[in-house]
Amino acid sequence: MVLDSVRRTRLIEGMGAVKLDACVCCAASDVLLLTGYWPIMAMSLAFLTMHGTCHVLLPQDEEELARKTSSADIATYQPETLHKLTDLMPALTQPLTRMIQKLGLEKARIGIRKALTEQPSSYVVSANFHDSLSILLNQIAPSAKLESCDHLLETQKASKTPRELVHLDRAAKIVAAGFAAAEGAIKPGLRETDVAARIQLVFDTAPEAEEVQRSYGSFYCMSGPNAAKAHAAYARTRQRRLQEGDLVMIHANTCADGYWTDVTRTYTVGTPSERQHSMRSAIMEARKASLAAIHPGAVGSAVDAAARDVLEAHGLGEAFKHGAGHGVGFAAANATGRPRIHPLSPDVLETGMTFNLEPAVYFEGYGGMRHCDLVAVTEDGVRVLTDF
Amino acid sequence: MVLDSVRRTRLIEGMGAVKLDACVCCAASDVLLLTGYWPIMAMSLAFLTMHGTCHVLLPQDEEELARKTSSADIATYQPETLHKLTDLMPALTQPLTRMIQKLGLEKARIGIRKALTEQPSSYVVSANFHDSLSILLNQIAPSAKLESCDHLLETQKASKTPRELVHLDRAAKIVAAGFAAAEGAIKPGLRETDVAARIQLVFDTAPEAEEVQRSYGSFYCMSGPNAAKAHAAYARTRQRRLQEGDLVMIHANTCADGYWTDVTRTYTVGTPSERQHSMRSAIMEARKASLAAIHPGAVGSAVDAAARDVLEAHGLGEAFKHGAGHGVGFAAANATGRPRIHPLSPDVLETGMTFNLEPAVYFEGYGGMRHCDLVAVTEDGVRVLTDF
Repeated sequence: MVLDSVRRTRLIEGMGAVKLDACVCCAASDVLLLTGYWPIMAMSLAFLTMHGTCHVLLPQDEEELARKTSSADIATYQPETLHKLTDLMPALTQPLTRMIQKLGLEKARIGIRKALTEQPSSYVVSANFHDSLSILLNQIAPSAKLESCDHLLETQKASKTPRELVHLDRAAKIVAAGFAAAEGAIKPGLRETDVAARIQLVFDTAPEAEEVQRSYGSFYCMSGPNAAKAHAAYARTRQRRLQEGDLVMIHANTCADGYWTDVTRTYTVGTPSERQHSMRSAIMEARKASLAAIHPGAVGSAVDAAARDVLEAHGLGEAFKHGAGHGVGFAAANATGRPRIHPLSPDVLETGMTFNLEPAVYFEGYGGMRHCDLVAVTEDGVRVLTDF
Repeated sequence: MVLDSVRRTRLIEGMGAVKLDACVCCAASDVLLLTGYWPIMAMSLAFLTMHGTCHVLLPQDEEELARKTSSADIATYQPETLHKLTDLMPALTQPLTRMIQKLGLEKARIGIRKALTEQPSSYVVSANFHDSLSILLNQIAPSAKLESCDHLLETQKASKTPRELVHLDRAAKIVAAGFAAAEGAIKPGLRETDVAARIQLVFDTAPEAEEVQRSYGSFYCMSGPNAAKAHAAYARTRQRRLQEGDLVMIHANTCADGYWTDVTRTYTVGTPSERQHSMRSAIMEARKASLAAIHPGAVGSAVDAAARDVLEAHGLGEAFKHGAGHGVGFAAANATGRPRIHPLSPDVLETGMTFNLEPAVYFEGYGGMRHCDLVAVTEDGVRVLTDF
């Protein structure tokens, strides 16, 4: 594994600016940021010091996978064996103590997560540390100072390095393979569950996924009146049967080795009505306007306004019920991810930032239409990673 | 929604025994335990007091779903609107303050999670509270005492109420529909990803799932030498192509409205060899012996020994690399779930306890075979929920 030296340099600069000696992270997407490894059971700990040493402490079961994707120094522990029966915290105490000693962090200013954040799912079950990381660190290193590194990590996650962008492009290629099956999967009489499952099958078996260690994620189908509810923070596939004339929203959040996509396309069952035609052209016009507003230095609220103004001009302002986007990459559906593309967002765009752009309209009882892309800010504008 | 009065009574008794005035929970499976609602974004908070009042504070988007499954008093908050742009902790502060006041918990002994636990995945993205629940409660109610309720909740989760068993039976019926497609999906030349995806499709579209609000979960396929690695804490579907004579393990963790299954079956590509025949008969004999050892009052280590002794008698003791089971229901793949069926487990079985029973053998480089069922302790023995 080649080191992502750009990320390491940025992290060390960021830690220096807030006078942290080190960061210790347990959330899976934070471990990915620091080490390049996307944990499975989310019971790995990543350590980065101001000297640039980077370690990851992980369950022995995950060592082989970690070595394939991370250049961090790897130490392992065994949460459980046939000869040992403990809970997870006792299993971590000794290895964590050794690591703190090895890195000389007994009296350090250590950055840890303190705030509530949205984290992408790394497996069907994953560890939740609750207060236990700070409890353990306070026991092991009572003279250390535990500071919040929430702001530092959220800021770092907003702008991707060139290597991280390569990962995101790969993720975008795989999700595109799923969407290629969407139009053909939509047929009147099928349930939303049938449609979502058929697209999911194509995604799950896409040859494009052979390039990565772990490709997974979910496709959702929301049709007719259910699509009108798709402005919620979550997507939900139900048992409704598709009818002629329905709008059908296909939404996906997928992951390639920890790098996430957030994509939506909307289809019609049968021939689109005039109303649906004009909704679509308004949304595509809003998309174009907001893409044109993206460049380094632009403010999040301005990009949102570019889309919103177009929809308002079409009399659809009220129907656009959420912000035009949010940071995507180290997570998928996190509304608070930086940069926020929202009417009130002061976030300033920088080269390498990635986010979704999702102009949409929702009409209660009728349906909804959304076109959601994953985009990256470039030196001279924007690049759409999901240009299909 | 009818109230699960059995659960509420047990929780209140349990809280009384450790002198807690209330519990406040944020982890999705804990919210389910207290309220009957399985959160989506895992940013819901459940409150249960010694007086038996039960409230849940959840994002407005989830209210409709919560009302269908929970009899708790529901209060909502809005993490984000077009007119408000905040992070999640500030969005929770006011509603949490009101709830603490309403319930009179300003000086109470409040139980919260402090330890590292394994939590099932409630959505593709979910909130991780890290230290924030205790930080917020300390701000809002500085005179309250925050105590660990980890032990209380883990103990409560071990034994299911009759209503919770109905949910688990439903989950078992849905996962069975997936497994019905397994044998037909296994063909030489297919990749593990192909096989897993075809079974997943049948599970995702099973008519049995129409009975529940949210049915999801993952099927995994591990073949030949990859099945030899399936003793790890996690399952992983790879790109390997199935070959004639391979052992093929199909593993599933699925969820119906928050109640989880953990099931594995092992198949052979083509005609089983003599070695495979004798592995299977040894495993089925170990299964039978351990089932016979299950009854209220039995100790976890004895149930493990019943399976282990049989495999040892067949010369397969070394190949059985993990404990014979662990608690399943409020989570799936949590090795520390009570009761632990492990050589060192002192856990005493009680009526209503549910766990998986997974006799297995693994031979590095060759393959692995596991037969994993979900079982419930009954008054006079055991019931297999996945008897297919």
